[in-house]
Amino acid sequence: MTNKILIDGEWRVGSGSDFSSLDPSTGEVIWTGASATSADVNEAAGAARAAFKSWALTPLGDRIAIMEKYRDLIKRDGEELARLISRETGKPFWETKTEAATVAGKVDISIRAYYERTGETETASGATRGILRHKPHGVMAVLGPYNFPAHLPNGHIVPALLAGNTVVFKPSEITPGPGAFIVERMVEAGVPAGVINMVQGGRETGEALTGAEVDGVLFTGGAKTGLAIHKQFSDRLDVILALELGGNNPLIWWDAADVEAAAFTVVQSAFLTSGQRCTCARRLILPKGEAGDKAIDALAKITDRIRVGAPFDDPQPFMGPVVLPKIAENLERAFDHLVEQDGQAIRNLSVREDGSAFVSPGIVDVTMRDNVPDEEHFGPLLKVWRVDDFDEAIDLANRTKFGLSAGIITDDKAKWETFLKLSRAGIVNWNRQTTGASGAAPFGGIGASGNHRPSAYYAADYCAYPVASMEGEKLLPLADDQVGIK
Amino acid sequence: MTNKILIDGEWRVGSGSDFSSLDPSTGEVIWTGASATSADVNEAAGAARAAFKSWALTPLGDRIAIMEKYRDLIKRDGEELARLISRETGKPFWETKTEAATVAGKVDISIRAYYERTGETETASGATRGILRHKPHGVMAVLGPYNFPAHLPNGHIVPALLAGNTVVFKPSEITPGPGAFIVERMVEAGVPAGVINMVQGGRETGEALTGAEVDGVLFTGGAKTGLAIHKQFSDRLDVILALELGGNNPLIWWDAADVEAAAFTVVQSAFLTSGQRCTCARRLILPKGEAGDKAIDALAKITDRIRVGAPFDDPQPFMGPVVLPKIAENLERAFDHLVEQDGQAIRNLSVREDGSAFVSPGIVDVTMRDNVPDEEHFGPLLKVWRVDDFDEAIDLANRTKFGLSAGIITDDKAKWETFLKLSRAGIVNWNRQTTGASGAAPFGGIGASGNHRPSAYYAADYCAYPVASMEGEKLLPLADDQVGIK
Repeated sequence: MTNKILIDGEWRVGSGSDFSSLDPSTGEVIWTGASATSADVNEAAGAARAAFKSWALTPLGDRIAIMEKYRDLIKRDGEELARLISRETGKPFWETKTEAATVAGKVDISIRAYYERTGETETASGATRGILRHKPHGVMAVLGPYNFPAHLPNGHIVPALLAGNTVVFKPSEITPGPGAFIVERMVEAGVPAGVINMVQGGRETGEALTGAEVDGVLFTGGAKTGLAIHKQFSDRLDVILALELGGNNPLIWWDAADVEAAAFTVVQSAFLTSGQRCTCARRLILPKGEAGDKAIDALAKITDRIRVGAPFDDPQPFMGPVVLPKIAENLERAFDHLVEQDGQAIRNLSVREDGSAFVSPGIVDVTMRDNVPDEEHFGPLLKVWRVDDFDEAIDLANRTKFGLSAGIITDDKAKWETFLKLSRAGIVNWNRQTTGASGAAPFGGIGASGNHRPSAYYAADYCAYPVASMEGEKLLPLADDQVGIK
Repeated sequence: MTNKILIDGEWRVGSGSDFSSLDPSTGEVIWTGASATSADVNEAAGAARAAFKSWALTPLGDRIAIMEKYRDLIKRDGEELARLISRETGKPFWETKTEAATVAGKVDISIRAYYERTGETETASGATRGILRHKPHGVMAVLGPYNFPAHLPNGHIVPALLAGNTVVFKPSEITPGPGAFIVERMVEAGVPAGVINMVQGGRETGEALTGAEVDGVLFTGGAKTGLAIHKQFSDRLDVILALELGGNNPLIWWDAADVEAAAFTVVQSAFLTSGQRCTCARRLILPKGEAGDKAIDALAKITDRIRVGAPFDDPQPFMGPVVLPKIAENLERAFDHLVEQDGQAIRNLSVREDGSAFVSPGIVDVTMRDNVPDEEHFGPLLKVWRVDDFDEAIDLANRTKFGLSAGIITDDKAKWETFLKLSRAGIVNWNRQTTGASGAAPFGGIGASGNHRPSAYYAADYCAYPVASMEGEKLLPLADDQVGIK
């Protein structure tokens, strides 16, 4: 795929300095391109502004047809996209094939959501018709993360374009390729010049984009950056923000007869995508005593069976590397720090001796430690707490400023019902991995996990605003007995 | 109605200093009570916090039954409520009867909206059920305005309570009575102690409330205060804000054969509720030349026929006073200022010579004036612009930072369609007053008119957050051929 940027339908070299992305499995440079300067970004936003009126007034059916064409192109090239994502992120090929399928699948879901959540309805009839329509906001800045470099920005872009917005998209600088890949297919599908624009680059480019003349910022990424964007717009009501941020997600395991299945559910929750899903379980809560001991044994055992390897290895790995060697180091340091501070290592999180981005999944019991910071470690690092009773388990689960996902593993339906009632999170699962979510449902968290603009099925909500109309072909005549008129 | 405040089911005297409200038609003091101090407010927020869990877990059917009882009590006492609103606001009795009916009507609409916009749905089935539910946020601070002192806070409170939130409500200090009146009916209907709390007071009490430990702030009022609240929460993602603010609403009149009906539609847009609706037309846009001249003549003529009077006058007035003598003075000053700066008075906005809150409806042609400030004068003050062509009319209509309501009066369907496409506002009407809106539609503006959380039918959206669940009674067993597990 291209290393250029896209402004007003023209692929060109960015005016800024070069940067590169690596294959985290090999350390090999696989993409080099020039970043977009602030001038480039403003030009892209200007192109999106200029294209807005015409795209907004393009009949919905035509916009849908273009997005369906895009869906078909992604299906056609799905394996190529998956391969690219695997190379840039290190995610196993079996997994990135599901990401590619999700990118294509988003189109039909977004069309359904457009009609159901927004669209057009009649609310009153007669001489005065009441019609509810929805209109696009204008120019949307989309800033994507590295863990799902195609699926997550696509989840903003597709509903934004369907609703009639135009877009300036910046992929994560860690994974520029898949973003460029999907934009190339949008262009091929017939998205007009200026309607989709793409810039590449790091933090400076991102700041230029949120500082450009845009009507919305759709961001998926870390809580710190999300909060900074929120603050940046504290004196602006006109710009709509949708911030999809991280979590410090709890998973309770309490009374489950099938210990192996339970342990595997923990592994799927904590270590899938090498712990680089925002829904990954970060905190495992277990009872003290024998049941908890058995659970930890089973978890340790299955963790030892996890195959860590490169994305195209045969047999396929469960976990690839994390996305950068630097991140691997940070994770190891964080793990070691927990152990130094009275944490008990159950399984060590350690970087392969070659200093690569491969890490082993780590589990640490922090029950004895006070005041473990309420922060997200974005990797395969699971903290364990042992508690006396179920009430304490629920209290502990909710003891976080975040509120993205939460889960419980239990055979006891009453415990699930209690947990469902009392937990505070946007995704609350029972006997299923915390990383499981339906594309047909909204996706988003509360607390520090977002700004109450859930994405996925509810992305339609932030991509358009309602316009309520009272309409009459004829004016209502002034009645002779009109109250208050002499 | 009471002059007390309500904390945890107990009516008590506020701990702060006394304040009063006036009947703006007579100047008579009709309500005196003690304001709530910051300690009172925090106690109210604490009571709401303590009551939250139990109310959130009360079956929806029970919450609905209580709100239906409330609806019936408002119907029973509707005329008393209308009378009270008329006395405190000065609005004509015929009009406040419609406000009382709207307060009752909100219950059924909110129940429908709860199910349609939120509620519970199944998104996947089989061994893994996908269920989408919605949960209340917690404690909602509701700050009401004076122009619809019952209807507008009620429009936040009813959906908030239905969804399972608890509430601390502060009516406008200009109109404390109707707020107390509806809260008394909520208590009578069986809303439990702590679930609805009410404090009285002015700016300090309001600041104490937005500064208290709350999970949401639902505010209807002026743009300046709304923006200040937005800024106050710039480092908080966890608190949901719904800000319903003002507008500088345009109304285009272009090609209408029935000049009298058109002029009456302008009057209904600009002068209804003495111009104290946030949807009131503030800017009338007319063609230059003969058609525009005729329109102005007709408008002036019907404006002279407007009966201004006290709310219970017989025959009934079209317009009562504005809500305070001070506001009447400010409006007169603003009008005079426009005239001094090259505005041409068509009809003078002037306060009755007795210094009361009664003003005559004012119309001023500001075509010759450059840079008329883009601000909302909350009263019967209509500015007129004359333009050369229809494109200029639309450009001028959109030349505002606000975007609440907009209207066009025209016989030409093509002009309506163009206007509908190009106008930027949350309410866009054709041949109907800009102040007309369906309760079954969302209500809210863009730009500086709100924070993209429309109210009315979409209030359900900000009163609950989605919780997506994947559920299985049984764990999924670890398969022998599970990818990535040795």
